[in-house]
Amino acid sequence: MSGEKLFDRVAIIGIGLIGSSLARLLRRDCPTTHITACARRAETLAAVERLRIADATTDDPVAAVADADLVVLGTPLSAYAGIAAKIAPALKPGAIVTDVGSVKEAAIRDVAPAIPAGVHFVPGHPVAGTEHSGPEAGFAEMFADRWCILTPPPDTAPDAVAKIKALWELARMRVAIMPAEHHDKVLAVTSHLPHLIAYTIVGTATELEQDLQSEVIAYSAGGFRDFTRIAASDPVMWRDIFLANNEAVLELLQRFSEDLTALQRAIRRGDGATLHDWFTRTRAIRRSIIEAKQA
Amino acid sequence: MSGEKLFDRVAIIGIGLIGSSLARLLRRDCPTTHITACARRAETLAAVERLRIADATTDDPVAAVADADLVVLGTPLSAYAGIAAKIAPALKPGAIVTDVGSVKEAAIRDVAPAIPAGVHFVPGHPVAGTEHSGPEAGFAEMFADRWCILTPPPDTAPDAVAKIKALWELARMRVAIMPAEHHDKVLAVTSHLPHLIAYTIVGTATELEQDLQSEVIAYSAGGFRDFTRIAASDPVMWRDIFLANNEAVLELLQRFSEDLTALQRAIRRGDGATLHDWFTRTRAIRRSIIEAKQA
Repeated sequence: MSGEKLFDRVAIIGIGLIGSSLARLLRRDCPTTHITACARRAETLAAVERLRIADATTDDPVAAVADADLVVLGTPLSAYAGIAAKIAPALKPGAIVTDVGSVKEAAIRDVAPAIPAGVHFVPGHPVAGTEHSGPEAGFAEMFADRWCILTPPPDTAPDAVAKIKALWELARMRVAIMPAEHHDKVLAVTSHLPHLIAYTIVGTATELEQDLQSEVIAYSAGGFRDFTRIAASDPVMWRDIFLANNEAVLELLQRFSEDLTALQRAIRRGDGATLHDWFTRTRAIRRSIIEAKQA
Repeated sequence: MSGEKLFDRVAIIGIGLIGSSLARLLRRDCPTTHITACARRAETLAAVERLRIADATTDDPVAAVADADLVVLGTPLSAYAGIAAKIAPALKPGAIVTDVGSVKEAAIRDVAPAIPAGVHFVPGHPVAGTEHSGPEAGFAEMFADRWCILTPPPDTAPDAVAKIKALWELARMRVAIMPAEHHDKVLAVTSHLPHLIAYTIVGTATELEQDLQSEVIAYSAGGFRDFTRIAASDPVMWRDIFLANNEAVLELLQRFSEDLTALQRAIRRGDGATLHDWFTRTRAIRRSIIEAKQA
């Protein structure tokens, strides 16, 4: 699929890890597409200019979206409602607005009401990333072989959905379409709960006595360091995710706590059979992930 | 440090991931050292023979240790006491017994009483590994740049400790010496609790409705797959670790649960400031691990 004709002018509002990766991809594969990068902070815009991943930079979302065929929201979720209200009057008729946020019901709740008639909103979530943040951290290959989930409300124009699908396929993503509510439930398991747990355990370790702390760092190769990688993810982005997907996360957390209590009880009672059964079952899931080529 | 003169004859009892990696290393760097591999299962011994990483194989620990200058215990912890009692009468005077187990107080409790006068027991723990198990999974480079912790009781012969230190330095490990109790506390944080949490969360996910399960696998790139890697570790080895280090693990689990409850409460109340503060603190630990070159 060639991306040459997908969009003439793209505005990326919030150009961090995901936004800058998309900019790099468009730069490389659709060199005639005009890219405007919008960010609040001058240093972010300076980095974008230094990296040469946009044709224009601005700190004004309204100026950014003028004439844009595609507007990509890449900010933390808590900024969506304010930006949507601001840019709404400036959106070009026929333009498509999409986003890359990790919670889709909240994205629809905060953005959809502001979108004027004749403009299309296609909520999206490329499930890709690293623990790094900011425009320097992006790379065009970040999306390759990962999944992108689109959650367009039922009345969304099929052509607009098809164009956003084509955009992420250009990035070599596999694209799935599902209801926003279902997306939020699935991602609570695959991403939100794991992050919460990693943040918790790393926080627990930082509160140990000072002498133990330096040893925790030295001997982290036994498992802990994988958690620290996850727990190094962007604090603002993740604060917003937990607040926006609170229901699904809290429900899952309840199940997790019950399971943890059961294992804790097995350890206290010296019940090796329960532990062994549990650990054997979890091994099978890893095999499935390897078979699905997501390892 | 040349390893040529360290040991003439080495017996490795329990030749899985760690034991076979050590055998490969000795084979490569101390080609004149005679290696006897001992395992209970015929297929393990057949794999060792196919891999040509030992000079002799046997399923009898007593036969394995005859004439050995160094005996390395590499089995799950629950086998230690039985093996120690069995091999004790066959140990050569002056021989050194060491182990590679993840819980050191339990190792000392189960092995030390059986060791006859004139034989030295130097408990050790190379903090290295992967989620794979068995002799096929080993590789000589596994130890490089990682830490090995030795926990010799105060009356251990310094020469014996020095020889085990030299062995792991040959494997390019950094060697630390500390009391067994302290080791078990540190490892509870850096390894045991992370594994327990990963096992729990992956187990929680396996109990979701069937349709959700296949999606959890497809979209695991968002964080979950890192947990599945950890939760694919050997079930018997980990059952034994939790049972052997139950006190330290249960105490830490208590702290973890309190912290998780605090974050859960913040999510339920929409308290973004608490979440943001927590997530900012955990980022710093990652930086320390990268600086300590353990990332």
